[in-house]
Amino acid sequence: MAPSTIESQNTKPEAPAFPEKQTVQPLDASKLTYTYTTNPRDVPDEATANSGDETICTDHMVVATWKASTGWSDPELKPYGPLNLMPTASCLHYATECFEGLKVYRGYDGKLRVFRPDRNAARLNMSASRISLPQADPDEITKLIYALLEVDGAKWLPKERAGSFLYLRPTLIGTQPTIGLVKSKQAILYIILSYMPRQDTPPGGMRLLTSPEDMVRSWVGGFGYAKVGANYGPSVLATQDAMQRGFHQILWLYGDQGECTEAGGSNFFVVWRRKDGKKEIITAPLDDRLILDGVTRRSCLELAKERLCDEFEVTERKYTIGELIEAEAEGRLLESFAAGTAWFVTPVSAIQHRKHDIAIPTGPDGGPGEVTDKIKGWLSDIMYGRTEHEWGIVVSERE
Amino acid sequence: MAPSTIESQNTKPEAPAFPEKQTVQPLDASKLTYTYTTNPRDVPDEATANSGDETICTDHMVVATWKASTGWSDPELKPYGPLNLMPTASCLHYATECFEGLKVYRGYDGKLRVFRPDRNAARLNMSASRISLPQADPDEITKLIYALLEVDGAKWLPKERAGSFLYLRPTLIGTQPTIGLVKSKQAILYIILSYMPRQDTPPGGMRLLTSPEDMVRSWVGGFGYAKVGANYGPSVLATQDAMQRGFHQILWLYGDQGECTEAGGSNFFVVWRRKDGKKEIITAPLDDRLILDGVTRRSCLELAKERLCDEFEVTERKYTIGELIEAEAEGRLLESFAAGTAWFVTPVSAIQHRKHDIAIPTGPDGGPGEVTDKIKGWLSDIMYGRTEHEWGIVVSERE
Repeated sequence: MAPSTIESQNTKPEAPAFPEKQTVQPLDASKLTYTYTTNPRDVPDEATANSGDETICTDHMVVATWKASTGWSDPELKPYGPLNLMPTASCLHYATECFEGLKVYRGYDGKLRVFRPDRNAARLNMSASRISLPQADPDEITKLIYALLEVDGAKWLPKERAGSFLYLRPTLIGTQPTIGLVKSKQAILYIILSYMPRQDTPPGGMRLLTSPEDMVRSWVGGFGYAKVGANYGPSVLATQDAMQRGFHQILWLYGDQGECTEAGGSNFFVVWRRKDGKKEIITAPLDDRLILDGVTRRSCLELAKERLCDEFEVTERKYTIGELIEAEAEGRLLESFAAGTAWFVTPVSAIQHRKHDIAIPTGPDGGPGEVTDKIKGWLSDIMYGRTEHEWGIVVSERE
Repeated sequence: MAPSTIESQNTKPEAPAFPEKQTVQPLDASKLTYTYTTNPRDVPDEATANSGDETICTDHMVVATWKASTGWSDPELKPYGPLNLMPTASCLHYATECFEGLKVYRGYDGKLRVFRPDRNAARLNMSASRISLPQADPDEITKLIYALLEVDGAKWLPKERAGSFLYLRPTLIGTQPTIGLVKSKQAILYIILSYMPRQDTPPGGMRLLTSPEDMVRSWVGGFGYAKVGANYGPSVLATQDAMQRGFHQILWLYGDQGECTEAGGSNFFVVWRRKDGKKEIITAPLDDRLILDGVTRRSCLELAKERLCDEFEVTERKYTIGELIEAEAEGRLLESFAAGTAWFVTPVSAIQHRKHDIAIPTGPDGGPGEVTDKIKGWLSDIMYGRTEHEWGIVVSERE
């Protein structure tokens, strides 16, 4: 027996005799490749950007694909355009899809900012896990958001549009082309950047209609807490009906007692004087997992606890539409607002419940009342760079 | 004033002075256009057809697009291949998607049959309405199914494969490229034809695990009754976990009492002797809209009521996992089966509930018991042309 053979029996070989099982690659933003559009589009003026039925996106998008066997591909920044999906793709049949929504703000100091994007990246993972889609390091997701903004930010949200925003939509879809219902072994993460109409100033304030008696948005043991597609499509029916009747959104109630949960795609806050005389800012709790853990919701709560606690108790607990009606009758209802990325912080001026109208005090012309206005102002100042704050992340951009 | 003018004031003009508002076109199968593949694929043998991760579809698919303003396009039969969808398409974010599943059977008489396709077409419309997608005349949907089978049936389910089936998947997706959550003004209906593994004969019978205490499939006021994507993706987590533990599907329970609702994607039946001594075939009711109105479920019920009513009461009512456990303890449990398109009629041999094992009598080796076997046989005879019956529709095919 030759010495080399004896050695090889006792020594761990430096290179394997056979190829090792392929490594599962983590999402790695540093591997981003750049393919720029050869057909850069014109930037619409603000008045027309949101006038059509179709959402206008910027020149580029970021895409990364995932396979269970190999992990994440190198992400690509490439021209915005259609996705090619097999007719059998999981997301087209089984709603294996989740998303995030956050805005990028052109500050009054000329800088571009995003608001707490770490929260969105973390929530994308939480949502993905509920529908058996892959997760990724939230820092890498955030870096891909920054990369898209670096390329498209300066052109599509120019410096002269201080006080304006664009909307970011990271989306994760299951793409395995298998009709049998399985955990998708293939997925695509993509990030797009678009216009979105400003919704936080409806004339007269936001008007809500409570959910129909035969419809429930989410339920204990379901997935109402996750930003998965399955929460949205089925809600259109009630929302569309409410809009046709002159309301902006549904106030979704839950259970026999009619607990207030969410206002359409926004979290819902009430400011009132309790029966014990104490003033309270209240919103539904997260613990039964009925509602979305909104980034705006969380930020409103944190700011209110920090800055309004002398005057108000800030509370996350169940409260019912009956309590609202009672508070109105007793003159204890002070304000209400919806909080979310799309509607930002919007005063609610009216709720209709089973034909009973609840009028809620607002500021002049349905504008924000005192508390709503303070919170909205504080957040807005962070977003648009009037206040330096750790929640407002400045993004670098190519000139 | 000229007489012509006087006339025109009193006469309805035959042609309008200005073009009328564009007509909204109904779905019209007679307008189907045919574009045949120039790359016909080989038909796999039965052993390999279902061996891979990806579903194999036939050469062609049928596609029709819809716009709110113009209605349905002329449907196209064209080569099977990827769909082009904008990254903003409604179905990729909001689960505006629903589908149907039905099989096409190669009969022992050499003919091709589908089973009650009118039921599937009607249910597609019902599902579509729950997620605000357009409806279409069910007869036209059925005709498009027939057209696809006429072209691809003879090649992909050849006459020598008597006793085999392919799987049809009509799918409707919302495609409006708008990030705001609205009723989709654009949609695509497509019909694909694929292989699917035979699932109705798992060795030892089907084993079910009751749903986790913190998870509910559907709820009163939700959409469990509709075949919408939103019911499926969120169920994968529990099902995957059950499979890893050696079970085939989840038995979804509902409410504090643990009502038995569905077995994975199938309806669930129990055959037992009641406390009053009467033998009963029981399944969950439709009236609280928790479960799918399965075509196989309905057919099982109809056949049982027609042919087994002397011996069994056939009942749609709520019953709980507690009643099952009690019946097992008292020796009253006779049989159980899952019924649906994918699993057809599959005997259930075991249920595990909170670590308690419920053993259910079956035929030899976990095969169908007496009732299960009879119902399965009757249905199978209709599907494969051993019995002439109005439910088995013969489809013409090109040789």
